[in-house]
Amino acid sequence: MKKIGIVGGLTWLSTIDYYAAICRMGESYAAANGACAPLPAPELIIESLDVAHAFRCIGTDGDEASWRAFDAYHRDALLRLQAGGARLALLAANTPHHRFASIVRGVDIPVVNIFEEVAKTCAALAVTDVLVLGTALTMSSPVLRDAMARYAVTAFSPASAEDRSLVVEIIAELQTGSAPDARRRLADLSKRCFAERPHTRIAVSLACTELPLAFPDSNGAETFVRDDILYLNTSAIHARAAFDLAVHE
Amino acid sequence: MKKIGIVGGLTWLSTIDYYAAICRMGESYAAANGACAPLPAPELIIESLDVAHAFRCIGTDGDEASWRAFDAYHRDALLRLQAGGARLALLAANTPHHRFASIVRGVDIPVVNIFEEVAKTCAALAVTDVLVLGTALTMSSPVLRDAMARYAVTAFSPASAEDRSLVVEIIAELQTGSAPDARRRLADLSKRCFAERPHTRIAVSLACTELPLAFPDSNGAETFVRDDILYLNTSAIHARAAFDLAVHE
Repeated sequence: MKKIGIVGGLTWLSTIDYYAAICRMGESYAAANGACAPLPAPELIIESLDVAHAFRCIGTDGDEASWRAFDAYHRDALLRLQAGGARLALLAANTPHHRFASIVRGVDIPVVNIFEEVAKTCAALAVTDVLVLGTALTMSSPVLRDAMARYAVTAFSPASAEDRSLVVEIIAELQTGSAPDARRRLADLSKRCFAERPHTRIAVSLACTELPLAFPDSNGAETFVRDDILYLNTSAIHARAAFDLAVHE
Repeated sequence: MKKIGIVGGLTWLSTIDYYAAICRMGESYAAANGACAPLPAPELIIESLDVAHAFRCIGTDGDEASWRAFDAYHRDALLRLQAGGARLALLAANTPHHRFASIVRGVDIPVVNIFEEVAKTCAALAVTDVLVLGTALTMSSPVLRDAMARYAVTAFSPASAEDRSLVVEIIAELQTGSAPDARRRLADLSKRCFAERPHTRIAVSLACTELPLAFPDSNGAETFVRDDILYLNTSAIHARAAFDLAVHE
């Protein structure tokens, strides 16, 4: 199995989700192949960055130079993972994927792209439209929309500024560990957004690693249905894709 | 703050404890210094090894050559952390500390030693005798006993083979997530061992990262009292020592 590199810390809670998910998949894989305890675990390397520094480096779309520090901070971490023996890598957050093409420039190992893996999952589930909930940058990202469009999936975010603010607010609450009624609020918001798109097969992309915390009983499932809504856990989909690449290629 | 390197995966559950503990300490430290959300997080690098491979490489005391692969597996990970920019490091498990001197040979960054940090904690608490519960290798380790002795602390493990087996059994149960009555069984066992040493100030060293799972309400505290017994959470003590070194030196 190839050594997986993770650029983490964005935030560290979600890095734990990725790490635990990959280790659990490794154990299941080893057990299914007849291994005994202690079960072999995949070798991994994690570069955990400072999320506050990453946020300070966020640039302005249309001004390439303004992104230089942001891109370099993530790229340098990927290069250190590569030097440390990682044979594939991932950026464990949605936000930096807005700058994916620039970040991976000069990186020689494959970097698994979360937008692309979510798009593939949508296509496999015959989803035509996906409501993207995440940080302001993710919700407005043309890079995300283009990645979805390549798989014939239409990505959209809440139309009203009020609903977009509500998403950001719920994420902040989930980060602090106290988000009363988050599941119901997300369902109500999603159904408001669906109303504009009847006759489509819609899913909701939880495109920020805190959002699945609103569904504690989903147990890290890649996709799940609650309140008649199909939800996509983007980090679980991403971790699975990296594991599969590490094992099978 | 200096970048901390962690040799993890031994097992991955305990690596999560170390990582979460250091990130939480970093957030508290940043908040206490007036930082706002998103709180700055310490930069870290984690080399997560395959515990099954590490176990297969365990040698035999008295036969130095038999330890070569074990020592090299851990040392190479430390050297990769050093090359990746770590300015101090730790081995996130008790077991490899039995071979600490050999493992750190040729490593230029400080490596925080769990045996030594636990010994310092015992000395600070005026503990004279410490009951060591852990893997067979840890319980019988003269290296651990010597480290404690340097701080005038007498380390001992359960005298009867039956009690030593019971410890290993409870650890295995905790690893699977089902260890009925583990707290009571550990308390009973500890009190049996204490009976041989009246008139001493005793603590119980949970010298295997699974053992604190028997005390879910201890919330990662470095030391805590349950059933009139003073317990030491060795990985929490170790993580704190690494954090303090990263911040203050």
